[in-house]
Amino acid sequence: MDDLRDRLLAGERRALARAITLVESGRADHRAQTLQLLEGLKGPVAMADKPALRIGLSGTPGVGKSTFIEAFGMMLTAQGLKVAVLAVDPSSARSGGSILGDKTRMERLSRDKNAFIRPSPSQSHLGGVARRTREAIDLCEAAGFDVILIETVGVGQSETMVAEMCDLFMLLLAPAGGDELQGVKRGIMEMADILLINKADGELKRQAVRTCADYAGALRLLRKRPQDPEGFPKALTVSAVEEDGLEKAWEEMKTLAEWRRETGHFAGRRAEQARFWFEAEVRDGLLARLRAPSARQAMSALAQKVAEGKLSPGNAAQTMLADHLQT
Amino acid sequence: MDDLRDRLLAGERRALARAITLVESGRADHRAQTLQLLEGLKGPVAMADKPALRIGLSGTPGVGKSTFIEAFGMMLTAQGLKVAVLAVDPSSARSGGSILGDKTRMERLSRDKNAFIRPSPSQSHLGGVARRTREAIDLCEAAGFDVILIETVGVGQSETMVAEMCDLFMLLLAPAGGDELQGVKRGIMEMADILLINKADGELKRQAVRTCADYAGALRLLRKRPQDPEGFPKALTVSAVEEDGLEKAWEEMKTLAEWRRETGHFAGRRAEQARFWFEAEVRDGLLARLRAPSARQAMSALAQKVAEGKLSPGNAAQTMLADHLQT
Repeated sequence: MDDLRDRLLAGERRALARAITLVESGRADHRAQTLQLLEGLKGPVAMADKPALRIGLSGTPGVGKSTFIEAFGMMLTAQGLKVAVLAVDPSSARSGGSILGDKTRMERLSRDKNAFIRPSPSQSHLGGVARRTREAIDLCEAAGFDVILIETVGVGQSETMVAEMCDLFMLLLAPAGGDELQGVKRGIMEMADILLINKADGELKRQAVRTCADYAGALRLLRKRPQDPEGFPKALTVSAVEEDGLEKAWEEMKTLAEWRRETGHFAGRRAEQARFWFEAEVRDGLLARLRAPSARQAMSALAQKVAEGKLSPGNAAQTMLADHLQT
Repeated sequence: MDDLRDRLLAGERRALARAITLVESGRADHRAQTLQLLEGLKGPVAMADKPALRIGLSGTPGVGKSTFIEAFGMMLTAQGLKVAVLAVDPSSARSGGSILGDKTRMERLSRDKNAFIRPSPSQSHLGGVARRTREAIDLCEAAGFDVILIETVGVGQSETMVAEMCDLFMLLLAPAGGDELQGVKRGIMEMADILLINKADGELKRQAVRTCADYAGALRLLRKRPQDPEGFPKALTVSAVEEDGLEKAWEEMKTLAEWRRETGHFAGRRAEQARFWFEAEVRDGLLARLRAPSARQAMSALAQKVAEGKLSPGNAAQTMLADHLQT
């Protein structure tokens, strides 16, 4: 474990990959090793003064996320920055594979020696995916990556989860069809720090500019958040295909991060997130006791009695809690 | 307890009220008494062969729920049936009072000796409200009520919760403004057995009829569910104010319930629900261990260390689970 830690801290990619595999493992001994490894590293809160940026990126399928990440990542590595890309895709968790996280989506970036791409894990419950992603982020940060992009699809709870792991949260959008805004949920809008309207090229360019103006107008209607300087959250147009607007977007991200660092919101947010994940993990850990073989057996037997009307749900639950879930 | 049980089974209203108060109590000794009381009664599964009907009723504020329940309840009691009305209102749980459940809303029905009205409990978490309501339903059934109406507002999780406690689920709707359907969520539509378009009187009558036809069309597009005979779910117009369409609605409810009894779906559903609530209660019970004073103290101390970056969320969670949540 000491050896793995040293190699990880030296920025060795194979060590990072192995450490993430350890994090993703369901085995109890691997879990113990993971915790030992993480404790030997400076955590996210202690790292808040480092220049590493954790950037969440969400967007519905078809909006051009892979193309954007590849172009954006290549631009960053060209500046000498080390970039890690982690994917969170609940649908891949369901199918058992990882489609969106596939490296073949980002061929150029995956061959870049300053980039590290890790597909979505195939854990079946969101709690497991959350923990793996959060800890993988810590490992990437410890391995010296400057920018960590966490990609997620714009559906369900995964967005909220990713937003709770990031310093900045981006929403990638397509030019809207009419003069109406897309069906972006208010909650998602409120999480976003920067809206990126992609595909601002060719025939869609004018539409993208108009959509951007519409979103900018909508953002002005939201209440100002304490963690934002004047002018944020904001909307920008980008073209991942033409690699246009990416530098401007990166400048804005740096400006925002810098302001948050200076005002203490950056470190404050990381502390809040660590607390949030601690509490979530305690809850998950408690509920995980139900998955132990003996507990499952007892649950199943009691559920049968309940379904037959021989025992009330309340009494059966009390029996379960008192007799089978005490350790 | 034996005395309370006997009086409850004899249909004594004061005994029923006292038993529900016991169910709503947060005290451990009251909980033990409740479980003892419930175990001495025939549970919901065993009662599935009795004619008692549990009817869930949802609808957004302003749609006329109270007026409908009063008129519908009076019609039933006039037929000699005993009617219990329970309210589930998450907003009253938040405010600590019970506004929607207030008996003053249903003055006539509350004076009816064949009716029993119980306002929404003021428990703060939905799990507590769920348990109380579910157990109060069992008590009403044991006390010999023929129809148990469970009312909820058409927002949030409370609808899903109520649907998991009922034999039939009604959705009360207002006539739509245009030719478009109201923003009824697809999930709610799919839970409903009968849609009741209220206010089919005076100036709104024509509009109500049109809205009803629109909904009927929309219902035909949904996949047929195994628990429905031909023609269900269906949409009907009612006027709570003019007491029109109520008997027709009641006939439809009886027809549906009868079909489900004969086909085994009625008993099957109750068994499924009992199993569902058993599992939910085990989960709630596990998480309730976090609310014990010693656990809260430990959580708070560990969270502080996590927020300061002295301990990783994962390690802190492991400590919490191993050292403070073993009993």
